[in-house]
Amino acid sequence: MKDLFINKAEELVPPLYKKEILPLGTVNIVSDANYHLGCKSVASNDKDKVFTNGDEIIWDFGNHCVGYLNFHIEVLHNPADAPVKLEITFGEVPYEIFCNNAEYTGILSSSWIQTEILVVDTIPSIVRLNRRYAFRYVKVKVLAISRNYSIKISDIRVTTVTSANEHNLKELPENTDSQLIEIDRICAQTLKNCMQTVYEDGPKRDRRLWMGDLRLQALTDYYLFKNYDLVKRCLYLFSGLRSASERVVACIYEKPNLCADNIMLMDYSLMFNVALFDYFEATNDLETSKELFPIAMKQIYALRNELDKDSIIIKQEGWWAFIDWCDDLQKVTSMQGLSIYAVDRTARLAKSIGMNTQYNELIKIVDDMRTASIKHLFNKEEGLFINKYDNYQLSISSQVWMILADVVDRSVGIEIIKNIEKNKDAKCLVTPYMHHYFVECLFHLGIIEDAVNYIKAYWGDMVKKGADSFWEVYCPDDEWLSPYNDVMIHSFCHAWSCTPSYFIRKWYDEIRSIPAKS
Amino acid sequence: MKDLFINKAEELVPPLYKKEILPLGTVNIVSDANYHLGCKSVASNDKDKVFTNGDEIIWDFGNHCVGYLNFHIEVLHNPADAPVKLEITFGEVPYEIFCNNAEYTGILSSSWIQTEILVVDTIPSIVRLNRRYAFRYVKVKVLAISRNYSIKISDIRVTTVTSANEHNLKELPENTDSQLIEIDRICAQTLKNCMQTVYEDGPKRDRRLWMGDLRLQALTDYYLFKNYDLVKRCLYLFSGLRSASERVVACIYEKPNLCADNIMLMDYSLMFNVALFDYFEATNDLETSKELFPIAMKQIYALRNELDKDSIIIKQEGWWAFIDWCDDLQKVTSMQGLSIYAVDRTARLAKSIGMNTQYNELIKIVDDMRTASIKHLFNKEEGLFINKYDNYQLSISSQVWMILADVVDRSVGIEIIKNIEKNKDAKCLVTPYMHHYFVECLFHLGIIEDAVNYIKAYWGDMVKKGADSFWEVYCPDDEWLSPYNDVMIHSFCHAWSCTPSYFIRKWYDEIRSIPAKS
Repeated sequence: MKDLFINKAEELVPPLYKKEILPLGTVNIVSDANYHLGCKSVASNDKDKVFTNGDEIIWDFGNHCVGYLNFHIEVLHNPADAPVKLEITFGEVPYEIFCNNAEYTGILSSSWIQTEILVVDTIPSIVRLNRRYAFRYVKVKVLAISRNYSIKISDIRVTTVTSANEHNLKELPENTDSQLIEIDRICAQTLKNCMQTVYEDGPKRDRRLWMGDLRLQALTDYYLFKNYDLVKRCLYLFSGLRSASERVVACIYEKPNLCADNIMLMDYSLMFNVALFDYFEATNDLETSKELFPIAMKQIYALRNELDKDSIIIKQEGWWAFIDWCDDLQKVTSMQGLSIYAVDRTARLAKSIGMNTQYNELIKIVDDMRTASIKHLFNKEEGLFINKYDNYQLSISSQVWMILADVVDRSVGIEIIKNIEKNKDAKCLVTPYMHHYFVECLFHLGIIEDAVNYIKAYWGDMVKKGADSFWEVYCPDDEWLSPYNDVMIHSFCHAWSCTPSYFIRKWYDEIRSIPAKS
Repeated sequence: MKDLFINKAEELVPPLYKKEILPLGTVNIVSDANYHLGCKSVASNDKDKVFTNGDEIIWDFGNHCVGYLNFHIEVLHNPADAPVKLEITFGEVPYEIFCNNAEYTGILSSSWIQTEILVVDTIPSIVRLNRRYAFRYVKVKVLAISRNYSIKISDIRVTTVTSANEHNLKELPENTDSQLIEIDRICAQTLKNCMQTVYEDGPKRDRRLWMGDLRLQALTDYYLFKNYDLVKRCLYLFSGLRSASERVVACIYEKPNLCADNIMLMDYSLMFNVALFDYFEATNDLETSKELFPIAMKQIYALRNELDKDSIIIKQEGWWAFIDWCDDLQKVTSMQGLSIYAVDRTARLAKSIGMNTQYNELIKIVDDMRTASIKHLFNKEEGLFINKYDNYQLSISSQVWMILADVVDRSVGIEIIKNIEKNKDAKCLVTPYMHHYFVECLFHLGIIEDAVNYIKAYWGDMVKKGADSFWEVYCPDDEWLSPYNDVMIHSFCHAWSCTPSYFIRKWYDEIRSIPAKS
């Protein structure tokens, strides 16, 4: 059965659309505290620069690109009597060009830093880089050249690749709020550049299919490029590559051979169910949904084994659930809420596809878990989810997931949100991924204006700081916050941050009905 | 006519013979003052090494190779969740692995240093390096790898390339002096690895066709691989790519497009004539010799323009003649001798191919230049060529070229050699190229035993110090002497040092008749 799923997935490998992009021109990167990570690009006039030892140039392609770079090296003054050694550095954002790579202190491998050291033996030459890069800026520096000749770089261009079908993308009506149009445009760019032969989390890093990220990408893609088959492919991949214990794994590698990572995250496993539910809602594809529903049920059985006698999730050691990149975050309450949310959607899917026995079974779990949550996790005095299971740690994510799980009714939910926003000690949200669920929570509570203002504040802030694509991590209070101990390694086009397009387009009419402020 | 020559040359591009070579094993490089540049390789047992961050391994291919490296990267412990960044360093000799490349202080571009920095995105992987390298040793170092997995390197191998037809190579009789057998074997290895689609000077650096080097390579090749057509190709290349002033240029690039360098060296231009003479002697190819003879005559006319009224070469500014890589060497006397030597051979060629008018013209030049040399360049009191034209600088090369030019008779020549060897102040010989002409001089004087002893001392010394191929520069008194201010950049398989095979094989019977020492 696993092989059957993988075969179905492999039949759905999408074609990649290619485009040739020329740079806008050359730039310098300069300090500016008002911009993202303290720097920005300003136009320069280096296009015709003649290079000798140590010289460098920065090309600006005008927007975030994913693809393959090539350029010509011309020779000047004399024949090239020695190879030329170049260092090519790619930046999704100016900071990656501005910073000193050698000072990297992060915990992820520095092999992710997008640089290439290249020795070109014969010049003039056409240089074609074999590796795919994600970037707006390209710095070319001459590390070593003979004193007897100089070079010029010309005809630099990138062949971009994406599986996103841009013909399906409808622009927002012109009279839409201009800030939302801009945010939506950047969301589409972000998602498009992550859409390759799977939904990659980020084209710079990790360049692979993560289950939690997939759920958000698919959700947004239904409103943008509508590559339903790419979602289907990814669902079949997760089904075919599930673990020996029938769990959906956290992430999958396509190359060199299809394989599952051995990272297992409880929330990511359950997000398979949510994504399958969303997929059926978007496509009505009964055949796929029925075929993959048993995999969803196996996630529920795995979940059931992780509940204590009171129907509360049992906390595990190590990196057992993702929830958010937030230091020391206690995750039981969030996981409880997320689980209810997932089981609820599994139940709704069961009902839609006529799996009545399973529906009843699932509804029972949802009820038990909701009841247990109110009893054991909610602190009535505080009006917040704060409890011993999480060592009495207060976090925004706990509240968000409990509200999304419908553990409390709308009015209590709205109170909780008001309450938590005032509380500066609560563990905050770090990634756009968790910010998504916060916004989803606001829409779910019907406080549309708050939701839109939140999008404008959080994503709009990235735009103000110069974003061409939305980032993996953004904490407005601390730009330098990094789950990896160095922002240099961040992915700055990260698909889990593309969901404002989903909200703007799904709730378009409701957003339009918000009365204008006087 | 130039195009015709180039077309003829291009029809003679030789096929490259390929061979797969596996390493002997792994080694460490350790200090040892008795070995070349203070270090040597010793076997290690790292073949099955597991690599994490910073680990390295050194493979030993057992002999000097020129070709293309490939290897497998296996993944251990976990799926590869990040690219791996490798630094691959190639060494013709242990020192290139032992030294710290970052400390390079030479005047040639460091782009010649044979390193490759490689980022491999997906692992397991087969890595094939596109660039051709010259090496015996390969160091692979992991610059960056994720903490979550390790790698092993396996199936490392090189596909060697050469145009030398090894089927033509006859081994020396078994009962030949064993030291000469060893020197001859290394000469053949050196020449073979420089034989590509032209006779390259060195496969590490400069990887191109130099006229002076070609003369020695061709001379030796007639006794080893007998690739007559490769010599013919190179003679046509120099003929087709001569300068606007009809001079044969010093060197030629094949890639990316055939082109002449703008370096012009008087001795190298004249070596075209010598090489054409040698070629006719070796092949009796009348058609080629007649076709290219006019080019040789143009070099003579150029020479005639550079003689003063007394028939002495006029010294020029800058790098006007090569002679040897010897600091501050004064070159008029050497150039005078070399010119006579070249005109003499041009005359002999003219006679052989029936160009009698030119023969008479040439003989006249030889006579005039010899007479002038004795009158103006020889110091009778000292019994040496020392004169105002060279600012009274005494050099071995002046004596050698005057003897080879038959300016003095045999007995005077022998006296001069005795004389100069005692004189420690004389400018000494630096490159094996000039050492060749010293040995040629000894054979020319018929002092065969001295010649053989000199070969055993100079080339034999390189063998004792661990040479697998003979070096571009070797000064026994100062191993660290470098015309480029850093030995790191030296070519250690340099064809101009391959000529002992020519001497040993040409003078084989005479060498065998040297009475054994008691």
